[in-house]
Amino acid sequence: MNRIPTASDIEQAHERIKPYIHRTPVMTSSSLDELAACQLYFKCENFQKVGAFKARGAMNALLSLSREQRAKGVATHSSGNHAQALSRAAKIMGVKAYVVMPRTAPAIKKQGVKGYAGEIFECEPTLAARESTLAEVIEKTGAVEIHPFNNYDVIAGQATVAKELLEEVGSLDFIVAPVGGGGLLSGTALAAKYFSPSTVVIAGEPELANDAFRSLQSGEIELPSPPTSIADGLLTSLSDKTFAIIREHVSRIITVTDPEIIQAMRLIWERLKIVVEPSSAVAFAAVLKEKSKFANKKVGVILTGGNVDIHNVGEKAV
Amino acid sequence: MNRIPTASDIEQAHERIKPYIHRTPVMTSSSLDELAACQLYFKCENFQKVGAFKARGAMNALLSLSREQRAKGVATHSSGNHAQALSRAAKIMGVKAYVVMPRTAPAIKKQGVKGYAGEIFECEPTLAARESTLAEVIEKTGAVEIHPFNNYDVIAGQATVAKELLEEVGSLDFIVAPVGGGGLLSGTALAAKYFSPSTVVIAGEPELANDAFRSLQSGEIELPSPPTSIADGLLTSLSDKTFAIIREHVSRIITVTDPEIIQAMRLIWERLKIVVEPSSAVAFAAVLKEKSKFANKKVGVILTGGNVDIHNVGEKAV
Repeated sequence: MNRIPTASDIEQAHERIKPYIHRTPVMTSSSLDELAACQLYFKCENFQKVGAFKARGAMNALLSLSREQRAKGVATHSSGNHAQALSRAAKIMGVKAYVVMPRTAPAIKKQGVKGYAGEIFECEPTLAARESTLAEVIEKTGAVEIHPFNNYDVIAGQATVAKELLEEVGSLDFIVAPVGGGGLLSGTALAAKYFSPSTVVIAGEPELANDAFRSLQSGEIELPSPPTSIADGLLTSLSDKTFAIIREHVSRIITVTDPEIIQAMRLIWERLKIVVEPSSAVAFAAVLKEKSKFANKKVGVILTGGNVDIHNVGEKAV
Repeated sequence: MNRIPTASDIEQAHERIKPYIHRTPVMTSSSLDELAACQLYFKCENFQKVGAFKARGAMNALLSLSREQRAKGVATHSSGNHAQALSRAAKIMGVKAYVVMPRTAPAIKKQGVKGYAGEIFECEPTLAARESTLAEVIEKTGAVEIHPFNNYDVIAGQATVAKELLEEVGSLDFIVAPVGGGGLLSGTALAAKYFSPSTVVIAGEPELANDAFRSLQSGEIELPSPPTSIADGLLTSLSDKTFAIIREHVSRIITVTDPEIIQAMRLIWERLKIVVEPSSAVAFAAVLKEKSKFANKKVGVILTGGNVDIHNVGEKAV
């Protein structure tokens, strides 16, 4: 797709991917509502296929290719959830997925890709090496690149998260989503614009990876920060396609510190009894940070995924 | 109630408590099915009010008392989920809850009770001190004792877990539940007997707290083991009421080691993306231990609660 997704594009994307994704639950908690002094609706993409919303965008991208386009496979460079999501989508469609990963990527991520029969090409852990290796793979195989977020079909797929949330809850005053490369956030902004124009979309971003915040201020795509935040799904910077949408439709980016992210994540684990990854907790951390902004409002919070290394799960029950 | 609950007693208990409890979801996972080589149906009582199935039994016990009986309040000794469950039920009914707790109980548990306006009486951390303190409290206040499991109304309340599971899934070949004092297990056995007679009920028990296993062998209620298992909700021994039911209706107890419990708990966290306490993982650990027994069968697994101290929830996402 070569244009910013329309309402109809998002509706069609939703119909297209429905057989292959979960309609994830929306959870509420009276104790968290009390704590945050607003009504919270958590959209639980940690229960999504491959454990993250990325399953939506990758699936829509694969389904949107023609038979000829996808015949030679799809390729991407990713060390995160998109790698697994793309491998899964390719496997469902019966085509090859080629994934360029830094050789330093954790074994568990490589296993995830291999579990869906994705083929891994290792490279040095730099952006330059990732891009040049991907170019080589594409030249060799003839595969189509599916970028994790700078792709309108991917953005339309991610937009279905907010579409479902709005369908389920009805009107919302706010939807808060985390921002990394901006695929989810731009999709969320479009879904709100089309399906609930009065809903204000706000982003949460780690202070240690505040390039989207800086980009909105400067009006240009800023370079990413050094990769130090615990929210390691949010370290990439925006792309031209996502920045253009976010710039126009996202009301504000609230930055949060790593301790605030950890605190929000613990609250979600303890009160909702669900496992979410640190990047997932950034949106809730933003709500807690600016309570007065959200006071007594209906606030949708997108929990993006649940892929964490489970260590130390051996504490005594309380 | 002074008799073993009948089918009608359990049905009435269910109607009675419905307005005050969650009908918790049943979760499935294709990857866990593959791993266990059977079809698993996880009944998620970690999402229950107060974070555990205990909300059911306590609520039914309170609702089954006459206005006169409950006027002077209710009392128990407990350092676990029953203390919170009873305090919550009492608060809903507008009566006092008196909870005897060892002075060494974690602050978080005491806070939980106080959060529901329960009144705490501290004692030395021995069973003798707990019982004598409870006797004093009851003499002083005139409150009715609600035992955590040696109480037929409590057992009828806990039986509604398996009743809902059977309603949701239809026929099951097995239901596996953990056993501590036996309230849940005896309720589960009764529910299966009445509502799905072909379903075999099996228990999981920590090897380090295998008093129920030993009791079934010896035909007498055996003393508890030293409290060393990580599954700290399962350290108590059976009571006369629960033992009589379990002895007649539970087909077998499978004991599992602490490392097996931790492994099962990690799988639940990683694959289902939900937070469960170690005691909750004992039933699943039992299924994994005796795979051949359950092969290709439909197996209900009761996840009893999700109240864990969340430490170290700060690992990098994968």
